[in-house]
Amino acid sequence: MLNAMFTALGVDYGTNSVRALVVDCATGEELGTAVFDYPSGNQGVLLDKNDHNLARQNPADYLIGLEKSIRAALEQASRKPGFSASEIIGIGVDTTGSSPIPVDARNVPLAHDPKWSKNLSAQCWLWKDHTSYQEAAEITRLAAKHRPNYIAKCGNIYSSEWFWSKIWHCLKVAPDVFDAAYSWVEFSDYIPSVLAGVTDPKKVVRGICAAGHKGLYCDEWNGLPDKEFLTLLDPKMAALRDRLYEKAHDATVPAGTLCAEWAKKLGLPEGIPIAIGEFDVHYGAIGSGIEEGVLVKAIGTSTCDCAVVSADKKIADIPGICGIVKGAILPGFYGIEAGQSAVGDIFKWFVEVVCQGDAGMHAQFSREAEALLPGQSGLLALDWNNGNRTVLVDPRLTGLLLGQTLYTTPAEIYRALIEATAFGARAIIERIAEHDVPITRVVCCGGIAEKNGLLMQIYADVTGRTMQVSGSSQACALGAAVAATVLAGEARGGYKSFPEAQRKMTTIKEISYRPDPVRQKVYDQLYGLYRQLHDAFGGVSSQVNLKHVMKDLIRLKEEQNRKG
Amino acid sequence: MLNAMFTALGVDYGTNSVRALVVDCATGEELGTAVFDYPSGNQGVLLDKNDHNLARQNPADYLIGLEKSIRAALEQASRKPGFSASEIIGIGVDTTGSSPIPVDARNVPLAHDPKWSKNLSAQCWLWKDHTSYQEAAEITRLAAKHRPNYIAKCGNIYSSEWFWSKIWHCLKVAPDVFDAAYSWVEFSDYIPSVLAGVTDPKKVVRGICAAGHKGLYCDEWNGLPDKEFLTLLDPKMAALRDRLYEKAHDATVPAGTLCAEWAKKLGLPEGIPIAIGEFDVHYGAIGSGIEEGVLVKAIGTSTCDCAVVSADKKIADIPGICGIVKGAILPGFYGIEAGQSAVGDIFKWFVEVVCQGDAGMHAQFSREAEALLPGQSGLLALDWNNGNRTVLVDPRLTGLLLGQTLYTTPAEIYRALIEATAFGARAIIERIAEHDVPITRVVCCGGIAEKNGLLMQIYADVTGRTMQVSGSSQACALGAAVAATVLAGEARGGYKSFPEAQRKMTTIKEISYRPDPVRQKVYDQLYGLYRQLHDAFGGVSSQVNLKHVMKDLIRLKEEQNRKG
Repeated sequence: MLNAMFTALGVDYGTNSVRALVVDCATGEELGTAVFDYPSGNQGVLLDKNDHNLARQNPADYLIGLEKSIRAALEQASRKPGFSASEIIGIGVDTTGSSPIPVDARNVPLAHDPKWSKNLSAQCWLWKDHTSYQEAAEITRLAAKHRPNYIAKCGNIYSSEWFWSKIWHCLKVAPDVFDAAYSWVEFSDYIPSVLAGVTDPKKVVRGICAAGHKGLYCDEWNGLPDKEFLTLLDPKMAALRDRLYEKAHDATVPAGTLCAEWAKKLGLPEGIPIAIGEFDVHYGAIGSGIEEGVLVKAIGTSTCDCAVVSADKKIADIPGICGIVKGAILPGFYGIEAGQSAVGDIFKWFVEVVCQGDAGMHAQFSREAEALLPGQSGLLALDWNNGNRTVLVDPRLTGLLLGQTLYTTPAEIYRALIEATAFGARAIIERIAEHDVPITRVVCCGGIAEKNGLLMQIYADVTGRTMQVSGSSQACALGAAVAATVLAGEARGGYKSFPEAQRKMTTIKEISYRPDPVRQKVYDQLYGLYRQLHDAFGGVSSQVNLKHVMKDLIRLKEEQNRKG
Repeated sequence: MLNAMFTALGVDYGTNSVRALVVDCATGEELGTAVFDYPSGNQGVLLDKNDHNLARQNPADYLIGLEKSIRAALEQASRKPGFSASEIIGIGVDTTGSSPIPVDARNVPLAHDPKWSKNLSAQCWLWKDHTSYQEAAEITRLAAKHRPNYIAKCGNIYSSEWFWSKIWHCLKVAPDVFDAAYSWVEFSDYIPSVLAGVTDPKKVVRGICAAGHKGLYCDEWNGLPDKEFLTLLDPKMAALRDRLYEKAHDATVPAGTLCAEWAKKLGLPEGIPIAIGEFDVHYGAIGSGIEEGVLVKAIGTSTCDCAVVSADKKIADIPGICGIVKGAILPGFYGIEAGQSAVGDIFKWFVEVVCQGDAGMHAQFSREAEALLPGQSGLLALDWNNGNRTVLVDPRLTGLLLGQTLYTTPAEIYRALIEATAFGARAIIERIAEHDVPITRVVCCGGIAEKNGLLMQIYADVTGRTMQVSGSSQACALGAAVAATVLAGEARGGYKSFPEAQRKMTTIKEISYRPDPVRQKVYDQLYGLYRQLHDAFGGVSSQVNLKHVMKDLIRLKEEQNRKG
């Protein structure tokens, strides 16, 4: 007879699908996993062909997906010897965000009501919805004037992707929906609340991750923005504050326990703990083994960079960093989040939109780009095709490519775009490290980190740091499961702390990318040129002499071509 | 019986082929034309796969082409009623340049000698050969130090495309060829000398066009550079000066008269006048009706801009203008030449190299680009993929594209590249006009001017000037024929002056492109931004604040999208 195998469930809600993952609590090993694609809209996203800024989701997709993905993952795990769904000790959930959902007084999304089901404003307002860019600018302006501390921790700019901008925009364009909504719940808080059977929005346990990073929530000013400030937006926004929440929590506090209804639906034990909801990259950081000294980079269409610093230390605001929120990632630590607005998306744009190619072209360009030496193309690009999130915090910056001749090949441009994102990554690392946040290791996760060796080597050569790769391809779901095991506790087969759970359940892949000192030296020069373009076009410095940039690139090109 | 029809011949040597044109002297009407493709090398160009800078031509191709093209053009003309080859009153020739040919003491190209026929250094050194870039830099350095006036009229930079750089490079890399060459003759002087039966290089009548623009020839310092200066290059270069020429001439002086041998070969009357050789764009300017107040733009892979100012006036050096040479284009006028190093070549690069497309893609991008409003893409480019000839005179500048997002389409980039060349064209027009060279009309010639209505309209909107199109598709050959009719004179059915010949023989097409005031206003703003990039990267100003450039582009983009 086998020993009892304690297992946990992680559920990871992405932009187009939801994934469930069953892991062995002892090792973090994957026992079963399943993906469910959202059935509504375009790959799960509700669009408006007259407004490119709009991106919504049907909350019903989430519930169907919750059941289907977990059921299928359990089914797969059940083939493993020793596995029993009855020994699952907890569930953790991560989602995209900020993705607020308007709900009625029973915590049911308005969109479930046939009266509102076709109304785009009554759906989940997906993270990448930018319809509220004017409201975001107005909140930024009002906060700068009346409550500068509110936005000091998010680079002094409030985003159109975030909670208050979206809700205020709803009030303006769909006042009927706003009035019909009793409250609004972040997607990351909503799913745990469903599993816990919470039927009152005020009783939904809110995570500090969404609240602190997107909702201007901070203990310093007693939680959410005060009503005086919200009245400047609209008296109705101030009134809404009473129907939101007073307190948000880190991952030491459970979102609840599994209710009877969902225990039955899923075939799981009733009463097991549900971890507090966090954003995907935050649980991804935990699943990648984040600790003080480690930077976790989730590299995909965009990147998110996470670091933590002990809450015992005093940490200053870091200029240009999206958010520093106590407990947002790991309890007992400040969570620091930075990011690049586009990485994989830039390569995808170049290959698919500009060159009208496909995956085969990506592979061809990669092969050709790999044969080039740093600087050999004479090209230099800025990675701002989707703005700059960190360190300039300016979504309205745009891309730049410099150094092209009549002989410049698309593979050279492809490499220059990869290098541009590497320079952007270096700018973030330097900014964080300059502000006394130690970075001794970089662990990357996400599809690009696993598959794109060319990019990973360039990142190592540009940053001068070894790039490690997270052991799990499902770092987000794994991190959510880790949180569940800690809540379950040692007695029930879990762990007494995050560090202990992470040591047992998370790994690093054997492959890692070490900087080549020769290439690093060339990239130091290119990075110097990048910074001059960055500072000139980013408005950091108005006294940049750009005359030499093209010539310096040609000099490097000629030097490298003599070697190449 | 028909009246006698007086006709003239123009022969236009391009990079890949030679064209002969028979025209009616009374009207300029084309009676016959024929093209002969050079048989040697790659489309007529001898290449070295180990050296991309090398481009030579087999001079034997020129002679075969001379006979074949003229014979075929005469054959075609002979079907026209009233035409008789015996009534041809003169021949004019234009060629590419600076394309010097090493010749023996009998004015025969070394390459005709079996001993040298396979030696690349013994061929014609085609205009676009850049192997002598180091010699060009050294001549620039030496001239700046010892004879600054030599290079003051060519923007203070001597080019690797020009006469002395090439000959000096030959001396360095192929001293045997240099020693075997008695002298060197410009392609544009060589063909007329062949027709005239000149068998002594010192008796070849040299055109001021090649001598003044490429050979540092000027009356101010008694012709070619002095021997003291040439000794700084190499004593052998100084010795060569004695075997070159003392005097160069404008188009009032004939290159000679048709010799018996070639009269017989071509079936033409012996003794008819041969116009002095000029470069293609210069005779093209004459064939497009150049006069004071008219800028002729030859738009092709690159552009060449020509203007003239009465030699009675005092004309100052114009900073950044390639050359101001008295008599170079039209006798009695200063010839002013400017140009853009790449125009059609940039679009070709983008479509064929970057997007790996073909003519169909050019057409598709043009259609899509035509539907865009100025500024609507948010893009701005610099047209420097092949350096900047005028007004920065810097062949080592490179391209730049700015404003791209994740939605930027290739057609938007295509339009931005066309616009960039239009901004470059405007910079040239403004520079010339600022220096008291009147420009009341712009007449364009060349393939792009005739076929690319989108580009022509953008040029009109950007420059705020009506773009006219030269009436002849063979403006260069026509201009050469015009020069021949003037030499023949009134008594023999020609004309007494260039203006009179041009009035009768050249025309403007009915179609012209007028600036649209609404678009012009937007382009004025974009041009302002272009100039800021231009001045910052071109080193004109080190105090340019670029912070606002991306934002101004977005503002324009949003304004235009509201209209579009």
